[in-house]
Amino acid sequence: MIAPDDRGLTLGDGLFETLLAVDGQLRDVEAHLDRMVAGCATLGLPPPERGVALKAMTDALDAQDGRGGRWAVRLTLTAGWGGRGLDRPAQPGTRLFASAAPAPAPAGPAVLVTSRIRRNEASPTSRLKTLSYLDNVLARAEARAAGADEALMVNTHGEVACAAAANVFWLSRDVLHTPPLDCGVLAGTARARLIRAASGLGVPVVETAAGLQTLAGAQAVLITNSLIGLRAVEGLDGRRFPGHDLVRVLAEAMAA
Amino acid sequence: MIAPDDRGLTLGDGLFETLLAVDGQLRDVEAHLDRMVAGCATLGLPPPERGVALKAMTDALDAQDGRGGRWAVRLTLTAGWGGRGLDRPAQPGTRLFASAAPAPAPAGPAVLVTSRIRRNEASPTSRLKTLSYLDNVLARAEARAAGADEALMVNTHGEVACAAAANVFWLSRDVLHTPPLDCGVLAGTARARLIRAASGLGVPVVETAAGLQTLAGAQAVLITNSLIGLRAVEGLDGRRFPGHDLVRVLAEAMAA
Repeated sequence: MIAPDDRGLTLGDGLFETLLAVDGQLRDVEAHLDRMVAGCATLGLPPPERGVALKAMTDALDAQDGRGGRWAVRLTLTAGWGGRGLDRPAQPGTRLFASAAPAPAPAGPAVLVTSRIRRNEASPTSRLKTLSYLDNVLARAEARAAGADEALMVNTHGEVACAAAANVFWLSRDVLHTPPLDCGVLAGTARARLIRAASGLGVPVVETAAGLQTLAGAQAVLITNSLIGLRAVEGLDGRRFPGHDLVRVLAEAMAA
Repeated sequence: MIAPDDRGLTLGDGLFETLLAVDGQLRDVEAHLDRMVAGCATLGLPPPERGVALKAMTDALDAQDGRGGRWAVRLTLTAGWGGRGLDRPAQPGTRLFASAAPAPAPAGPAVLVTSRIRRNEASPTSRLKTLSYLDNVLARAEARAAGADEALMVNTHGEVACAAAANVFWLSRDVLHTPPLDCGVLAGTARARLIRAASGLGVPVVETAAGLQTLAGAQAVLITNSLIGLRAVEGLDGRRFPGHDLVRVLAEAMAA
């Protein structure tokens, strides 16, 4: 249980990671821990010890008897207790804990709608998985209310940034594009995995700041995150995308 | 204690209010509860029952033996348990709790620096006191590191929005100005109190979207929130503001 004055709860002051575990094996665990450590540096929090973090995650899996099948393992780091108000204490006493839940594979391609909530690229938190995730919650709720699976978020310049809980890619003229991190984008571990897989297949990958029109004119759009891997997008704001062979090839290469 | 899977903790999904209690009397309690109820409507959460909220706050004061002097009472509403991921359950089971801590009056005028973190007026959360308050935490930390008391935040258009934990006003040609809410501004209870007090004194108040140059050229700048009431600003990004009689008059009228 968590104290009600924990700054993670009172102010969203902290970070999290969501990892996929398949048959008891945590995927990309070093990349996830690297990202949390880098996020701590940005937020000014002491980083977790890797051994402690790893043990918390495997303990969470074991507590759910989660050594078989697909599991989502969440690692949460809060800024801990810090008294009243915005100011952190000089030596934050962070708190680290993990949980595990079943993670069924997504069912087929996704339908996206663009959220009215803009991604604020003018904050470092737009590039981190922080405990202040309410904009993402609201964007997702907006998408669900519109009958879609996920929200696409553009930043304050109108550039495509990401989905509420995924990175975004699109295929144009057989080149794979994705927004650069400074568009307000999390450095997704699945994003990195797809970039490596595409490069291995000889598919060029370019970081591109682009508007919604560019996506509407793409050959294919897809989203990635740790749990879903690569998921094709079949609809965006009413525009339909037919399946594309290269997306299937990339999904297989990325999963390998 | 709070469950580690509470959405307030895991995703910053919730709201809070901070009230001033003086000698056991909660100030502007109806205005604070109105704002939390309105925030719930925006977020799609069931609102708290007023009687329950009031009891939680008075119980928190009593638990601290806080019936004398100045106390900060914080009321927190979380979206409660909701399983894994961004999607809320159909019927959120919210959680409400309160705490109290001593609230000494601020010592003299404040020094502000402008934060590099922009206020995202393109999200409804910029107008709410949400549990996703990390941008405010980081802006305040930036200000403290620069030797200042508080951060001034401009929005993505470069318009003055607010301080990290206060509303902002400025005096130009004996007219009081403050940004409109659509600049990404919380409808502060002390903001409303100051607007009423100024009107009562015959001082015109105008909602104005303005850049930083306008503030630099103002006769006076001041900040307001529930705990500090009105606090004069004596420095902003190196510019010094001499005291202004009208600010003292407004502070007294507002406190009355």
